[in-house]
Amino acid sequence: MTTLHAAHALVEDRIEADVTITFGPDGRIEAVTPDTPPAGERIAGLVLPGMANLHSHAFQRAMLGLTERAGPEGDTFWHWRDVMYRFLALLDPDDVQAIAAQLQLECLRQGYTAIAEFHYLHNAPDGRPYDDPAELSHRIVAAAAESGIGLTLLPVLYRHAGFGGRPPTEGQRRFVLGLDAYAALCQRLAGVTRVGVAPHSLRAVTPEELAAAEALADTLAAAAPRHIHVAEQEAEVADCLAWSGARPVQWLLDHAGIGPSWCLVHATHVTPEELARLAPTGAVAGLCPSTETNLGDGIFPLPAWRAAGGRFGIGSDANLTTSPAEELRWLDGIHRLLQRRRAVMPAAPGRSIGLDLFRAALAGGAQALGRAAGRIAPGCVADLVVLDPDHPTLVGRPPAALLDAWLTAGNPTPVRDVMVDGRWVIRRGHHPAAAAITARFRTCMRRLAARL
Amino acid sequence: MTTLHAAHALVEDRIEADVTITFGPDGRIEAVTPDTPPAGERIAGLVLPGMANLHSHAFQRAMLGLTERAGPEGDTFWHWRDVMYRFLALLDPDDVQAIAAQLQLECLRQGYTAIAEFHYLHNAPDGRPYDDPAELSHRIVAAAAESGIGLTLLPVLYRHAGFGGRPPTEGQRRFVLGLDAYAALCQRLAGVTRVGVAPHSLRAVTPEELAAAEALADTLAAAAPRHIHVAEQEAEVADCLAWSGARPVQWLLDHAGIGPSWCLVHATHVTPEELARLAPTGAVAGLCPSTETNLGDGIFPLPAWRAAGGRFGIGSDANLTTSPAEELRWLDGIHRLLQRRRAVMPAAPGRSIGLDLFRAALAGGAQALGRAAGRIAPGCVADLVVLDPDHPTLVGRPPAALLDAWLTAGNPTPVRDVMVDGRWVIRRGHHPAAAAITARFRTCMRRLAARL
Repeated sequence: MTTLHAAHALVEDRIEADVTITFGPDGRIEAVTPDTPPAGERIAGLVLPGMANLHSHAFQRAMLGLTERAGPEGDTFWHWRDVMYRFLALLDPDDVQAIAAQLQLECLRQGYTAIAEFHYLHNAPDGRPYDDPAELSHRIVAAAAESGIGLTLLPVLYRHAGFGGRPPTEGQRRFVLGLDAYAALCQRLAGVTRVGVAPHSLRAVTPEELAAAEALADTLAAAAPRHIHVAEQEAEVADCLAWSGARPVQWLLDHAGIGPSWCLVHATHVTPEELARLAPTGAVAGLCPSTETNLGDGIFPLPAWRAAGGRFGIGSDANLTTSPAEELRWLDGIHRLLQRRRAVMPAAPGRSIGLDLFRAALAGGAQALGRAAGRIAPGCVADLVVLDPDHPTLVGRPPAALLDAWLTAGNPTPVRDVMVDGRWVIRRGHHPAAAAITARFRTCMRRLAARL
Repeated sequence: MTTLHAAHALVEDRIEADVTITFGPDGRIEAVTPDTPPAGERIAGLVLPGMANLHSHAFQRAMLGLTERAGPEGDTFWHWRDVMYRFLALLDPDDVQAIAAQLQLECLRQGYTAIAEFHYLHNAPDGRPYDDPAELSHRIVAAAAESGIGLTLLPVLYRHAGFGGRPPTEGQRRFVLGLDAYAALCQRLAGVTRVGVAPHSLRAVTPEELAAAEALADTLAAAAPRHIHVAEQEAEVADCLAWSGARPVQWLLDHAGIGPSWCLVHATHVTPEELARLAPTGAVAGLCPSTETNLGDGIFPLPAWRAAGGRFGIGSDANLTTSPAEELRWLDGIHRLLQRRRAVMPAAPGRSIGLDLFRAALAGGAQALGRAAGRIAPGCVADLVVLDPDHPTLVGRPPAALLDAWLTAGNPTPVRDVMVDGRWVIRRGHHPAAAAITARFRTCMRRLAARL
């Protein structure tokens, strides 16, 4: 049994003082009690639930800066995707692990404690399976073992280049697995880490393949996560309409078993009718505002979604930023600008504007990862971050304003300590494997540079 | 004569290699020559012109996190302003200097080399002048001497609580100076630092007072900067219309000598007609996107402004972030979302999307500060920042992508070295006064906490 005594902690919807938190060797919190005398390890600062990062493509971290150029056909998402395809053709297994470990380290430092890796890189550059078809998935698992982040691995089912079962392009050959190979991959991985299924998008799987992925999920774990990219681009919506007469979210609602184990990533271009049907299913909207902004995707109607009781979480996606605070600023900020007010949702006088948004993202993120997390409460795993009250961003703030200060301020990060599953992975800013991870990442990036 | 030899540098609109930069003891660049053999001090990395921060209220840095709550009357800018008024009543001269030095240090670390401090805190908390009426202005100057940032001090003329010469409120009593006292203050300060005038807003000065400030500016220096808050809030536009029949920008165009020495801060709520008249004057739009977002001000029509040839720069304003890269991401990102494309302005294939935006902000910022800066070119002062090519954000990027990577990535900052006026103020991330500045800031913040 481990006992922490936090100067302050977020317990449900309140910042409490002198909070004793106990958890067992399995990392599960057993008791949380405010207003207690010191006992166990004393933690100065504000203890918060760690955030789940519900959508990451780790390797895109290594593309930083390479895509900020228009192509011959314009400055679109689709040109960005071409650059991305060319880049990923360069990556070998060592690269994948080196980049993922650095990315996860950066996420931890900024306050994410768990990550859902939407992993679509399966095959060798020539499109053939590696000797071990799970080679690259195992590299993601190995990276998480090094970084200590809580991993939910989402092997991606990618079969086609467009609606109606169009054959994949050459740029997609590293993604494509047969249904049997995909099932074998997921089942093997389920023995070593938390796994969910990820049919890539309605562009990339047929209705039959989607149904197969759903059926597979049921064999992996109870309520295993199911993630899909949906309605990120207007062209995708138009293509889906042309193919089926329905918009992508509408199609999913009509044909898939959308419910709480689903995460609909992006869902940018949704109609009020789609929102009204989707929210009661309990599915999570997987919002990736920093990436959606960079890509010019469009604006998810968050206020309407929240008003309808919809659940959401945040993902770093292309990994331009790894700060949950920055991600939430983007998510919230765009609606502050559009609504011309400071609180996107009605805020009671005196109540923190950011707290409810933060808690909602914690809950939705944990749900999307299939992880009992997102709260400091009995039964949850001890995924915790501690904000340093002496950090220049926070020093002198009243306890109730520490979270607000973190969420509204630009970096540098005031996250001081990070615990995952009851184990400290960062103490006083120090991660024991950081120097090795970053040194290897630098070597990898310099090697890649020579191949660009 | 000092000679630097940069591995890469931004020279006009190109990233050049092996650039020799020479400057004299006055910090003015004398020659810039790409493709040269090594000579003088060798600088690994990408050398960029330092960014001018054209709008700061330093003390608001110390309010971080205190304003994220709705008031009894709602979640408006005006409630935010009430909190700000209560906070600034707490500050003594030592606080003002301690906060300003910390803020300037943070700006330097993130890549700003100069700052325009829109300084409206003149009087003691009881509204009476200090024994030295320039006490607080001198504290800003003293902070800049400690931090080494290039300062343009803009003492603010604040006379009234609203249009039509309404008397100031109690919350404004630290701001109010008579015209003679204001002129004396500006003239004294012009002997010690770069100075401009800042009639606070059309709410806060009458037409006669505005004209007096303009006339005063002409006595301070050739083309001394003139800054004014304008059209940030819709209520201000409505009040201005009720008072004069004209919108604020329209009124200024009709009644003030708007030209290149003017900076119109925010200018959020402008019509196409106002933009079309304003752009050819050469005035700078002072855009503060991170603050305007936090406050829910609204969206400045940047694409139309740039299409009209309008000049702009960026300001950190409330100092939630001190990163010019983050500020530019906000500025650009909102239009990526609204336009649903990646380049807000038409971008030639293969050309960096961010480079032109960055260069425009450099030029507009330097102009607004009255500083011969913003370019690495003969005649400009050597205000330089160096991006560390070994930083995890940048390692392995081709030279042409280093700037893009910096601009698109979240923190931590890859700024390694900073030079102001030909003198290094940060070397390898180290600022010699940083420890002392931050220690004093912490002491100040803890003292303030006791008074909150």
